[in-house]
Amino acid sequence: MSRLDERASGVFTIAVTPFAPDGALDHGSIDRMVDFYVEKGATGLTILGIMGEAGKLAAEESEKVVCQVVKRTELPVVVGVSAPGLAQIGALAKLAMDLGAAGVMVAPPWTLKGDAQIVDYFRDVANTLGDIPFVLQDFPLVTGVTIPVSAVLEIVSDCPTCVMLKHEDWPGLDKISALRAASSAGSRRISILCGNGGQFLPEEMGRGADGAMTGFAYPEMMAGVVAAHTADDSERAHDIFDAFLPLIRFESQPGLGLAVRKRILNKRGVISHDTVRKPGRPLSRATEKDLANLMTRLDRRLEELDIRI
Amino acid sequence: MSRLDERASGVFTIAVTPFAPDGALDHGSIDRMVDFYVEKGATGLTILGIMGEAGKLAAEESEKVVCQVVKRTELPVVVGVSAPGLAQIGALAKLAMDLGAAGVMVAPPWTLKGDAQIVDYFRDVANTLGDIPFVLQDFPLVTGVTIPVSAVLEIVSDCPTCVMLKHEDWPGLDKISALRAASSAGSRRISILCGNGGQFLPEEMGRGADGAMTGFAYPEMMAGVVAAHTADDSERAHDIFDAFLPLIRFESQPGLGLAVRKRILNKRGVISHDTVRKPGRPLSRATEKDLANLMTRLDRRLEELDIRI
Amino acid sequence: MSRLDERASGVFTIAVTPFAPDGALDHGSIDRMVDFYVEKGATGLTILGIMGEAGKLAAEESEKVVCQVVKRTELPVVVGVSAPGLAQIGALAKLAMDLGAAGVMVAPPWTLKGDAQIVDYFRDVANTLGDIPFVLQDFPLVTGVTIPVSAVLEIVSDCPTCVMLKHEDWPGLDKISALRAASSAGSRRISILCGNGGQFLPEEMGRGADGAMTGFAYPEMMAGVVAAHTADDSERAHDIFDAFLPLIRFESQPGLGLAVRKRILNKRGVISHDTVRKPGRPLSRATEKDLANLMTRLDRRLEELDIRI
Amino acid sequence: MSRLDERASGVFTIAVTPFAPDGALDHGSIDRMVDFYVEKGATGLTILGIMGEAGKLAAEESEKVVCQVVKRTELPVVVGVSAPGLAQIGALAKLAMDLGAAGVMVAPPWTLKGDAQIVDYFRDVANTLGDIPFVLQDFPLVTGVTIPVSAVLEIVSDCPTCVMLKHEDWPGLDKISALRAASSAGSRRISILCGNGGQFLPEEMGRGADGAMTGFAYPEMMAGVVAAHTADDSERAHDIFDAFLPLIRFESQPGLGLAVRKRILNKRGVISHDTVRKPGRPLSRATEKDLANLMTRLDRRLEELDIRI
Repeated sequence: MSRLDERASGVFTIAVTPFAPDGALDHGSIDRMVDFYVEKGATGLTILGIMGEAGKLAAEESEKVVCQVVKRTELPVVVGVSAPGLAQIGALAKLAMDLGAAGVMVAPPWTLKGDAQIVDYFRDVANTLGDIPFVLQDFPLVTGVTIPVSAVLEIVSDCPTCVMLKHEDWPGLDKISALRAASSAGSRRISILCGNGGQFLPEEMGRGADGAMTGFAYPEMMAGVVAAHTADDSERAHDIFDAFLPLIRFESQPGLGLAVRKRILNKRGVISHDTVRKPGRPLSRATEKDLANLMTRLDRRLEELDIRI
Repeated sequence: MSRLDERASGVFTIAVTPFAPDGALDHGSIDRMVDFYVEKGATGLTILGIMGEAGKLAAEESEKVVCQVVKRTELPVVVGVSAPGLAQIGALAKLAMDLGAAGVMVAPPWTLKGDAQIVDYFRDVANTLGDIPFVLQDFPLVTGVTIPVSAVLEIVSDCPTCVMLKHEDWPGLDKISALRAASSAGSRRISILCGNGGQFLPEEMGRGADGAMTGFAYPEMMAGVVAAHTADDSERAHDIFDAFLPLIRFESQPGLGLAVRKRILNKRGVISHDTVRKPGRPLSRATEKDLANLMTRLDRRLEELDIRI
Repeated sequence: MSRLDERASGVFTIAVTPFAPDGALDHGSIDRMVDFYVEKGATGLTILGIMGEAGKLAAEESEKVVCQVVKRTELPVVVGVSAPGLAQIGALAKLAMDLGAAGVMVAPPWTLKGDAQIVDYFRDVANTLGDIPFVLQDFPLVTGVTIPVSAVLEIVSDCPTCVMLKHEDWPGLDKISALRAASSAGSRRISILCGNGGQFLPEEMGRGADGAMTGFAYPEMMAGVVAAHTADDSERAHDIFDAFLPLIRFESQPGLGLAVRKRILNKRGVISHDTVRKPGRPLSRATEKDLANLMTRLDRRLEELDIRI
Repeated sequence: MSRLDERASGVFTIAVTPFAPDGALDHGSIDRMVDFYVEKGATGLTILGIMGEAGKLAAEESEKVVCQVVKRTELPVVVGVSAPGLAQIGALAKLAMDLGAAGVMVAPPWTLKGDAQIVDYFRDVANTLGDIPFVLQDFPLVTGVTIPVSAVLEIVSDCPTCVMLKHEDWPGLDKISALRAASSAGSRRISILCGNGGQFLPEEMGRGADGAMTGFAYPEMMAGVVAAHTADDSERAHDIFDAFLPLIRFESQPGLGLAVRKRILNKRGVISHDTVRKPGRPLSRATEKDLANLMTRLDRRLEELDIRI
């Protein structure tokens, strides 16, 4: 498989990890899920992220997931390898690449304080990874670490293997503008794919992002918005986005969001069960009802708009 | 003015505090803003909240704002009185009531740990306030204090002057359901008005909320959703909501949201300037452009839906 | 090996994990370290805790550490098994017990909000663990979760396998008093061992603690304080404690503390290297000098006091 | 009164605000407290800080406290003026200076993210303050804002009116060393006074601090350590410090510390009551007993050491 580079664009879907009701890995659903993401327009896959319940997998389970996903698709696969120690990060990354991944993703640990410590950390990460390309995950809401534009640019300048920013700072539109202004002014231009459930995707594309890296249960939304934007049809990008927005919002509820996402994927026939590993909890009846209503309204709205994606 | 009680419902708008470009209170805009809220369907006003930049007002400015707002409207006015000391809370509340407020609002300080400390704190608050009715502000995202259902119910049971919950726990739909189940089972039923920029208003109404207490710059959205819900037309409630959702989302950006809100109110002719007191910052050009685009799209969508509110 | 129960007392040292300069496990130092802890008065050992750099160990390394420590000593060994998923906690605990551990230790995840969620979580943990005895780690400074006295008592009442509280709430003296008052009033009495680097050990013993569970690099301090307290000589307990306090304080610096601890153990000849796994950093020269000065002063003070421990 | 400048050194005591049992300001105790601080070796006073319960004072009370303290002493008085808005900071500072203060102190708001925002904020503060000298309060444990060395140096370079750092980063010894290395290399040298209850004072002096700014209830400790250090007698500095350390530690308990401090000052005859304004709580009986024991032990130790300060 070819390696991830700065030209990556489109939709990298953050994959869930499907489980059977007893909590075991559900391998049949993994294959169906990969096929589904491909069919709906993914240009890459990201696995073992926070929303992939990576922290709840045993080491051998993580390895199995990587193997199966990489075998099932030709698309580039990015593997989350954040860990408390650099040695682990290095070992997980080497394993993932040996299994066929295209690159890895690393978030900063919450202990970092101040811009210089952040830059130093990613320098150490890059040294540890050698020639493995990596995605810098910028997700202050969860990591507690804000990475200012100047620090991102320093990392980009110091670490040639940093090829992508997973952008989920929030609010973050002006950050994308600032990064693109910097690359116009001579800084190396890396790929920027946006997360946060896709909540600002049309605006993010307008600021210069190259696509989305997020796991919203309707990847056709991300694919549609990116395609419309690329075709210079910003109004259509917004139309598509707006249709899905009530569900994007519903899936973005912290804590609850993953169960919502798995429930939608289950109702869409992608995964056999909506099981979230404990201590995750299932949706309440009332929440399931709210969700079903939103899904019905979405179908109607897509018809109205004659959106078939 | 009559006092706030458990039957309060509809839309209490969280008022901004309008400033002149030099940062002085803009009294002309205050009057226009009150009139605008009333015209757009408010059933009450809440002033000196976090989004009212209360912390940036000098004591005499706060007093002036209360005076002017209370004089301008017949609607009940709730005044935010959260403070580090109980004595201050008591003094501010007394002052506000003397000036004509209908009740006060109190959020828990971040130092509280564990359910019992939270309940104790509000017991102390209620004792301090005497017979002044108060709103319990449940806003963990900002206060850092989660108030479980059982603690809310204990406060409701122990403090007869707690007449309303400002609900902005997130995710919080099941919390409303649990509180309403408890009141059906005999707990005193208090008013529940929902905040968080209105991001979940149709679902919140479906769970038993009595309305909204939030400052989204189009109060007609909240009024429309509440009216449609009251008329048992949930689909229309959702239609109205969905039309405004792209802007609700845009206004919900942390840190940036208040500047967005003031900019919209300014463009709608309500306040003369979109000044946010320092260290708040103005919107970037690119963000203003994004906002203008969303406002244009909203107008078109409202026409399509034949929503005139 | 016999299982941990409610009668555990004395000093459970939190073991560091010794590494070679290249970051590999240093097995020779592990044996010496275990012998040192035993010689200095430990009544038990705790491994794979936060200060044992558990998060930086690969799965097979953790297993090796458990094996080696359990083989080297007759003392009960407690193994930290906190993890994001209950399945992992169960698997790690079973593995540890099979290897000869006496019990396991579990801290709450930061996502828990409100007393009921905390109690529910530990109920789930107890169910997952079956008959394996566990230590409830109460460490809000790091976990962000405050466990009020009432919640501890509910866990103790609902989970017979919860046999010990690792107490490191801070300030926490009145919590110990309240828990002991409750056990006098009929609640099951569990063991309370105190952490936080031993910073309040004499007072904690006075409130009813059964000893210490912490990794201060001079375990003879903890052993001496507990022995003096048991011999009803509170003044001597304080004299011993006070002599070590300048170093206790120095080792309690967040972030830096582990490097200080390993440096002291290295200078005392216990471990061959003071290596902290990356991204941990070594001490600055100036800090090493400060530390050396404090160690010299300690020796002099112990002589003055005629403390030979 | 002369203005604060970069040469400030010695002991600036953080003053408590004495209250009567009913919570009113206790003016008699304020005078006695000022006299006590002066007599015990203070070279300056800091009022209206966090430990002065500034947040619990009404505006007119704050003004009264400033007036009374400034009138009672010739020493320079620093007034805490941190507030959510720059306009307030400016107004409070002007008022304080008009009343006779020597300078003001400002901490960063928790909303700042990244080095550049911190530097920008203090630039704005300096502009707002005009020629009023200010102390930069670096207290990440409470503000949540870490100010790296490079950011401090940028503030020092950009804002000539920043004349002092109140250093309470933790761990912070290497920060002092780095700042002093920078001033040796040509950066403007400002005063560094250390806070954090004095927990690292001898080491801080060794790294180049100019003294202490903290409110430990025995200011003679700070004065003694600074004097011994100035006389190049580091061993005596440590001897004095070590004698007080058990109490320094006891007073450093978060939440509880202020009540401990007021209790000691009360037992020493300085203030008439140990009242902490609500929602602060009084000490438990058991804690009072622990404290009394530590005070007795201190007296004995001072005698042994023949320390009369």
